[in-house]
Amino acid sequence: MMNPLIQLQHKLKEESKLEGIFIPHGDMHLGEYLLEHDEVLRFLTGFSGSAGWLVVTADQAALFVDSRYTLQAKEQCQGQGLAVLDMGFQNLKAWIQKRVGKVPLGVNPKILSFQLWEQLQKAGISLASIPEEFYTDSWDNRPAAPCSPFQNYDERYAGRSFSKKLQDVQQTLKDQGVAGYPGTDPHEIAWLLNVRGKDLSFTPINHCFCWIPAEGKPSLYAHHKPQEVDVEVFPYEAFYEDCQQQWSLEKVLLPTEAPAALHLIFKEKVSGKSPLSLPKAMKNEIEIQGSQEAHQKDGIALCKHFAWLQEKLDDGEEVSELDSAHHLQFLRAQQSGYWGESFPAISGMGPHGAIVHYRVDKGSDIPLSKEGLYLLDSGGQYLGGTTDVTRTLCFGTPTRKQIEAYTAVLKGLIRLSQVRFPKGTTGGQLDALAREALWQLGLDYGHGTGHGVGNFLGVHEGPASISPRSREPLLPGMILSVEPGVYLEGQFGIRLENLVLVIEKQEGFCEFETLTLAPFQKKLIDFGVLTDQEKIWFESYQKNLVKLLSPDLSPQAKTYMLEG
Amino acid sequence: MMNPLIQLQHKLKEESKLEGIFIPHGDMHLGEYLLEHDEVLRFLTGFSGSAGWLVVTADQAALFVDSRYTLQAKEQCQGQGLAVLDMGFQNLKAWIQKRVGKVPLGVNPKILSFQLWEQLQKAGISLASIPEEFYTDSWDNRPAAPCSPFQNYDERYAGRSFSKKLQDVQQTLKDQGVAGYPGTDPHEIAWLLNVRGKDLSFTPINHCFCWIPAEGKPSLYAHHKPQEVDVEVFPYEAFYEDCQQQWSLEKVLLPTEAPAALHLIFKEKVSGKSPLSLPKAMKNEIEIQGSQEAHQKDGIALCKHFAWLQEKLDDGEEVSELDSAHHLQFLRAQQSGYWGESFPAISGMGPHGAIVHYRVDKGSDIPLSKEGLYLLDSGGQYLGGTTDVTRTLCFGTPTRKQIEAYTAVLKGLIRLSQVRFPKGTTGGQLDALAREALWQLGLDYGHGTGHGVGNFLGVHEGPASISPRSREPLLPGMILSVEPGVYLEGQFGIRLENLVLVIEKQEGFCEFETLTLAPFQKKLIDFGVLTDQEKIWFESYQKNLVKLLSPDLSPQAKTYMLEG
Repeated sequence: MMNPLIQLQHKLKEESKLEGIFIPHGDMHLGEYLLEHDEVLRFLTGFSGSAGWLVVTADQAALFVDSRYTLQAKEQCQGQGLAVLDMGFQNLKAWIQKRVGKVPLGVNPKILSFQLWEQLQKAGISLASIPEEFYTDSWDNRPAAPCSPFQNYDERYAGRSFSKKLQDVQQTLKDQGVAGYPGTDPHEIAWLLNVRGKDLSFTPINHCFCWIPAEGKPSLYAHHKPQEVDVEVFPYEAFYEDCQQQWSLEKVLLPTEAPAALHLIFKEKVSGKSPLSLPKAMKNEIEIQGSQEAHQKDGIALCKHFAWLQEKLDDGEEVSELDSAHHLQFLRAQQSGYWGESFPAISGMGPHGAIVHYRVDKGSDIPLSKEGLYLLDSGGQYLGGTTDVTRTLCFGTPTRKQIEAYTAVLKGLIRLSQVRFPKGTTGGQLDALAREALWQLGLDYGHGTGHGVGNFLGVHEGPASISPRSREPLLPGMILSVEPGVYLEGQFGIRLENLVLVIEKQEGFCEFETLTLAPFQKKLIDFGVLTDQEKIWFESYQKNLVKLLSPDLSPQAKTYMLEG
Repeated sequence: MMNPLIQLQHKLKEESKLEGIFIPHGDMHLGEYLLEHDEVLRFLTGFSGSAGWLVVTADQAALFVDSRYTLQAKEQCQGQGLAVLDMGFQNLKAWIQKRVGKVPLGVNPKILSFQLWEQLQKAGISLASIPEEFYTDSWDNRPAAPCSPFQNYDERYAGRSFSKKLQDVQQTLKDQGVAGYPGTDPHEIAWLLNVRGKDLSFTPINHCFCWIPAEGKPSLYAHHKPQEVDVEVFPYEAFYEDCQQQWSLEKVLLPTEAPAALHLIFKEKVSGKSPLSLPKAMKNEIEIQGSQEAHQKDGIALCKHFAWLQEKLDDGEEVSELDSAHHLQFLRAQQSGYWGESFPAISGMGPHGAIVHYRVDKGSDIPLSKEGLYLLDSGGQYLGGTTDVTRTLCFGTPTRKQIEAYTAVLKGLIRLSQVRFPKGTTGGQLDALAREALWQLGLDYGHGTGHGVGNFLGVHEGPASISPRSREPLLPGMILSVEPGVYLEGQFGIRLENLVLVIEKQEGFCEFETLTLAPFQKKLIDFGVLTDQEKIWFESYQKNLVKLLSPDLSPQAKTYMLEG
């Protein structure tokens, strides 16, 4: 069988209307996790990473990946004449500009955000829409899409009925003076309809589209009909055709992050955030309660797991990175309402902990050890709430340097957890609070400090985040992670991550209420470096652990939780 | 004599090609301080504020001013049928859109930034260029422009020769692939040419333009020829004509903040910062030394002044807000190299201190008092450096509330002054450090935390600043203010302001070195609320005052400096 990439290049040779084609790693929902069905880059090149851009001309091809995937991509793609290059718009632009002249570059506008489409056009690159079939028609054994049915997400978890949510969303549409909103994000649709699904491994959604008119019944484009939801249901495949034929002359609300295909169909657009984005992010009281309960369950599993790990290592038994991840999942699964992991756990011993996006597999798996630090970043999906937590452990005796770094990371976590700020402050304004103690030591971390988290939905959720570039206001009800870290290549990585809830405590001022319940290791903390305020926070956190977790813990696990 | 505004409206009635005209408060250099010669809004409407937009149609007129000028504008403009409205692009746009249809609005594109020009056009407002004469030809007794000569700014202050500066700037132009840069900012030109002038009261510059080619001799458009500077000199008035006739076909570097007129002339533009902006802002060692010396002189004047004020009030003598500002200026003028104030002092007693932009005049002047707080924000221009400093004083016994607020403001100042941060961090990332202690008390301030400061140049200088929206990196050699505050209407205002220098102390990490030398009042500080780190900063600051100021102070002034 001919290599699919070469086959595609043959096709391009015959196709005089296209100079080449551009395929981003993505699907029609522009989501974080792809179905096997949508892993087009893997089919074409062998590359299995979670982000990348492929550009193919009749005689050249380049794959753009970020630094965590450079080595992997080179290994997976060798022997195909494929250049592996650094991801980044400037590099992409330069590569295309050199090779593509007036004959356009083919792109499937359904899997590309309008932002990127516009950026390419502004760089003088001529684009032509191509259908998916152009690059998938030779994919003979393509995995089918799972097409899982909708499951009702009871109002005792969702906290608000579909009809009430719809009323608010439609009011937003009316306020913006638009006729409707074409939605392509299954997280948002699941939130609005109070349904969940099982198409993906880590997020309880299934793939669907919707049209929400400013008045009247929404149209849902899905493989199944949800029960108990008053919407018109049409086939999943009919979405774009209906947009074109029924609503393309209407004025719509359309974010620039939406697929380019929608921007090409709709001419009269009000640019703005999705009308579902903020109401989904600002959790209601029931959702908050659900999250608190999920965190209690998660904390019990974590405490048991940490105590188990320590016991095994003290007994000289071998536990590997993979074993640890599996055992934690096993303990989480014993909790009621558990659905699955919220993302693939990062379980990194020693130098592996310093690889920010380390993903353990059978090839990389090593045993945990009493020497060095162990970083475990994991999360669970529970009916009622999503968790995401990182702790860094030492099973032996920590070094002075490890204690110093751990304490600085902890100080950053506490500082940000304690801040009071005016309602509407952005994450960009607060990000430095988590870094200051590390900066003082000449250290820093290359990732953002926090991301939004959904309610039994995506573990990464917009619109707000906490990073130097975050411009979205932090508003009451939002759940975000706080996860400073430090990574010393070849030595160790430390990250401490809690989820926090934004609450309005005093008129006009907000605070963070910590949701995560998981112990820190006292032997890794230099208490002399903590301020009085930081010590107060720590004591009160410990008290909360005792109160909320210890009834479900064995005496050993309880001791471990308190003394580490 | 007919009212100039009504005269203008008569003219518009006869002018069928224009629906109306838009005049911003500004001049061809888009600077902060205007010459009397350029106070067009004052001539047309009587409004004397430092910011505003005037829109005039044949039968209507509106003046847009910000909140600090609302009352004043209504008083100054009454009886002319002029609506006084809130400044803000949305308001301006709405007002114009209602009244201006397809017939365009006249604007002088030489006094309008391209940003605003573009914003208006994007709002669907049709614009037509008009010359200044259109709205000034009836100004019979218009003050002449001062046209002061250039004074050489010796290299022992400037620290770097014109030719070396030019070499760097031309390298930047070459790197950007442009033929030249048309400059309209007299601060930048003064910096490049190592000259200063005396057109304005608070900034040692005179009005001029330049054309800097990527290679060869720059052209200067000015009223005089500078000595010792190897440039071609042409009449000030010839700048725009020469741009049009000589360089309009060239590719140029042109910031969006540049006048719209330049954007209309040049078609091939690379958008970006001015090539002079960063080198001017990143002071060299000689400039830093000059600034340190200026701050020493300034500190001596301030200490003497504060002690004098306390003595006068203790003796029951009357000193008014204006007296205080004048006396401080008198003491500054005794220092060598003093040129003048760097901006009009803000001298506000009691509730006046809570008015952020309070400007004392004979009408508002009140005596200082032992009751309440006194806020004094002032600065000096010295050969070698520019200062800007704010202290808040209590001449009697402070209240608990005043101490609490003063301490929180001081904590903010110290926190930001102590931070270590990666080179390239923006002011937007650090701004919250100065607010956190205030937020904790449910307080905040409505202004930015800091602005850039020039070297014997503008007291407000770009590109960097410290505010929630600052996106420019803080780089070594930049001088910025750190000025948190709190303002309780009708009660008191507190602001504490130091200038700080960005230094790179450790590879890749920067810190602030405080330049300002002026005492804080111990009786206003609750030391129990300061952290150990903050106390260490305070002690060391006090020690520095003793070392650098006390040799020039009387025993009384020295005691006041230390004990307040």
